[in-house]
Amino acid sequence: MKTYGDLSPSPRTIMTPGPVEVDPRVLRAMSFPILGQFDPEFTGLMNETMEMLRHLFQTHNQWAYPVDGTSRSGIEAVLTSVIEPGDKVLIPIYGRFGYLLWEIAERCGAEVVTIEKEWGQVFDPREIIEAMDREHPAIVAIVHGETSTGRIQPLSELGAACRERDILLIVDAVATIGGVEVKTDEWMLDAVIGGTQKCLSVPSGMSPITYNDRIEAKVLRRKKIERGLRDKSASPAAPGRTIQSNYLDLSQLQDYWSPARLNHHTEATSMLYALREGLRIALLEGLEPRFRRHLLHERALVAGLAAMGLDFYGDPDCKMPVVTCIEIPAGIDGESVRSMLLEQFGIEIASSFGPLKGKIWRIGTMGYSCNKKNVLHLLGALEAVLIRHRADVHAGSAVQAALDVYADQL
Amino acid sequence: MKTYGDLSPSPRTIMTPGPVEVDPRVLRAMSFPILGQFDPEFTGLMNETMEMLRHLFQTHNQWAYPVDGTSRSGIEAVLTSVIEPGDKVLIPIYGRFGYLLWEIAERCGAEVVTIEKEWGQVFDPREIIEAMDREHPAIVAIVHGETSTGRIQPLSELGAACRERDILLIVDAVATIGGVEVKTDEWMLDAVIGGTQKCLSVPSGMSPITYNDRIEAKVLRRKKIERGLRDKSASPAAPGRTIQSNYLDLSQLQDYWSPARLNHHTEATSMLYALREGLRIALLEGLEPRFRRHLLHERALVAGLAAMGLDFYGDPDCKMPVVTCIEIPAGIDGESVRSMLLEQFGIEIASSFGPLKGKIWRIGTMGYSCNKKNVLHLLGALEAVLIRHRADVHAGSAVQAALDVYADQL
Repeated sequence: MKTYGDLSPSPRTIMTPGPVEVDPRVLRAMSFPILGQFDPEFTGLMNETMEMLRHLFQTHNQWAYPVDGTSRSGIEAVLTSVIEPGDKVLIPIYGRFGYLLWEIAERCGAEVVTIEKEWGQVFDPREIIEAMDREHPAIVAIVHGETSTGRIQPLSELGAACRERDILLIVDAVATIGGVEVKTDEWMLDAVIGGTQKCLSVPSGMSPITYNDRIEAKVLRRKKIERGLRDKSASPAAPGRTIQSNYLDLSQLQDYWSPARLNHHTEATSMLYALREGLRIALLEGLEPRFRRHLLHERALVAGLAAMGLDFYGDPDCKMPVVTCIEIPAGIDGESVRSMLLEQFGIEIASSFGPLKGKIWRIGTMGYSCNKKNVLHLLGALEAVLIRHRADVHAGSAVQAALDVYADQL
Repeated sequence: MKTYGDLSPSPRTIMTPGPVEVDPRVLRAMSFPILGQFDPEFTGLMNETMEMLRHLFQTHNQWAYPVDGTSRSGIEAVLTSVIEPGDKVLIPIYGRFGYLLWEIAERCGAEVVTIEKEWGQVFDPREIIEAMDREHPAIVAIVHGETSTGRIQPLSELGAACRERDILLIVDAVATIGGVEVKTDEWMLDAVIGGTQKCLSVPSGMSPITYNDRIEAKVLRRKKIERGLRDKSASPAAPGRTIQSNYLDLSQLQDYWSPARLNHHTEATSMLYALREGLRIALLEGLEPRFRRHLLHERALVAGLAAMGLDFYGDPDCKMPVVTCIEIPAGIDGESVRSMLLEQFGIEIASSFGPLKGKIWRIGTMGYSCNKKNVLHLLGALEAVLIRHRADVHAGSAVQAALDVYADQL
C-alpha cells in the first residue's frame, strides 16, 4: 500500500475573505487532550463559550451557541428550524450568498420572494421596507457582508421595521462577526449566524449562532422529542410542522446546550476548544479596538493598491471593511497572477464567483491575517507579480503609501 | 467583563464508548497552520484522505469522504439524500441508535416500518430477510454496532439479500469503523457511515462516509444545481424529489470532493488534518493488527471484570468487541461510582440510555484509549471505588486476571 507522509503544510499568508490564518493560540488550543462530552469540566467550557458568544453578538439572548458544521450549517439550522412550509420569506439579494439563502429557504418549503440589486451595490433600507409592505413576508433573510462583491448592507433600520410588522429578521453575519460591528440587540436582529474562519480566525467547522425569544417561540411550536429519548406515550409535533432536519434542529440543539444537556450529537471537542480560545482572544483585544484594527489595515491596503494604480470594484459607500475588491487590469490573466502569488510568495488572494469570475480579485483583511506584516508583504509581492505580468503599475509606490498610513497612526 | 482563563483541561483516561482519547499525533496535526481550501496542497490532502478512507471502509467505491459535522450529520446526509418522500424504509431496531435512524428517516418523509428486538440481543439475519419479503422496502437502514447495548449485528448475509431484492442497504458503522471489521464491498453494503471519535481516536466533528454507484444513481436523480452557481436557464430537479437539505446534499458534496471542486462549504481544515492523521495512523498499524489489538484488550478487560465478580449485560454471542456492558450491582448507585471514578481517578466510563439508565455501565476499549495501561488502571480504580461503595467484589483479583491475559499473549 502507498504510504502517506507526515503532515507538513507549507507556510501561507492567507489574504482571502476566508478561511484566513488561525491565531497560533487557537492552534495550540486544539492540541490539548480532549474531555468527555458530559464531563463537568467540558460542560463548563461549553457554558463559558456561550457567555463569550453573547458578548461577541452584543446580545442578551439566552441562546448563543455553535452549530457543529461549517457556516452553511448554521445558516441552514436557523432557516430549517424557523421556516415552515408555505412561509413567505423575503430575501434581498446583492451577491452570491443571497442566492444561498434563497436556495436553502426554498428547500425548507418557503414561498420565496426576492428583490435583487446589481452586484457591487447594496439596498437602501427603504427599498427593503417597501418590499415588506408589498409582500407581507413572515421572514426576511439577508446577508450582512457579501464577500462575493465585498459590500456591506446597513441593517440598523431593518430590525425596527420588521418588529413593527411582526416579521422575523434573520441575518447572515458569517463574514462580519468579530471584524465589523454586529449589534444584535440594538439593531433588533432576531437571529444572527456567524462564521469562525473569517474575522474570528478559528478554523472552519463550527458556526456560532444567536436568536431571541421570538425565534425560539416559533421553533418550540415545531418541537418534536426524538424517538429513543421520548416516552412512548408522548405525541410528536403536529404533522407538517415538524422540523425536517434532526441534526440542525434548534429545538434539540438548545436542549443539548441547556442545563438539561439532553443528548443530541457528541460535541466537537477540539473545535469547541478552538472557538472558546478564539472568542477569548477577541474579547481580550476588545471588540471596539478589534474593529478599529480592521479599519486601520484596510486603510493601509487600500492606500497601497490605489498608489499602485489599481481600480477598485463596487460602490465605495458600502465597501466591506474586511474585504477589498480590485478590478483585474485589462489584458492580465487573473488566475496566473494568483498562482504566481501562491507558488512564489506563499500568499493567497481570492477570485470571485459567477459574473465576477475573472473580473476581480478579492483581498481579505480578517482576524489574525489582518496585520501590518501581511499587508506590506502582499503589496510588495502583488506589485512584483504584476510587473512580471507586464501590467502597467506605479512601481515602488504601494508599500510606501501603506507605510505612510501606518506612520500617520503613531 | 469577566475574564476567561487559559484553556487547561485536566488529564483524563476516557473509557467510554466515545468520544475517546485522541492520539497525540492527531492532536499535534490540528496545531499546524491552515492552508486555504482551494490551495492545491490542501486539495492534495483531501484526495489522500479519500484514498485512505477507501482502505478503511475496505471498498473500491469512488465516493469516500467526510461530512463536516458530527457522526449524526453523516447519517442524516446519507438518509436525506437517498430517501425520497414516500419511500418505504425498513429499520431493524435493537437499541437506541436504531431509533435515531427511524427518527431521521421519518423527517425525510419515509414510510418507516420497523422490527424490534429486545435490547441486549441482535437479529438473526433471516428475521430481517423475512421482513424484507413481507414489507418490500426500498431501503434497509441498520446499525452495525449499538453502543447503547454493546451489541453488534452480523451484516455479511444482508447485503446479498438486499442486492437480490433491489433494496438499498445503509449501515451506521459509527461505533465500529476502525476497531472492528467493516467490509463494505465484500458484504455488499451500499452506504456506510463511520465515526471519528470512537475507534479512529480523532475528535468528534467529522463523519466519514462511503457509498456506491447504486446510491449515487438515486442521489443524482434528485440533483439540483445550487442557485448562484447555476446558469439562469438551467432547470431545477423535478419538484418533490429535490433533496431537502443543502448542507447535507451528497450530490453537492461529491461535486466539492471531485476534481471539479465545485464550491459548497469551506472544508473544516484542522479537522481534515486530524482525520488524515488518524487514518494514516490506523493504516500504519494495519487494519487486521488493529482489530486484533482491540480484541486483546477487550479480553483482558472482560477477564478482570469477571474476576472482580461483576455480571455482564446482554447476549454474549453478539457482544461488541469495543464496548463492554456490566450490570450495576444491586444496591449500588451507578452515578455515584461514575462520579468517584472521574473525580478521584480521572477515569470516565459511561451509563446508558432509556430502559438501561441506572441499570448498566458501559466501558469502551476504542482506538487510542484501547491500551494496556488504561485497562489495568481502570480495573484497579473500579475495584477501589466499588469497595468504597461497600460492593461485594473479589478484592485484588481483577488486575491479576488482566495481567494473566497479557502474559499469555507473550
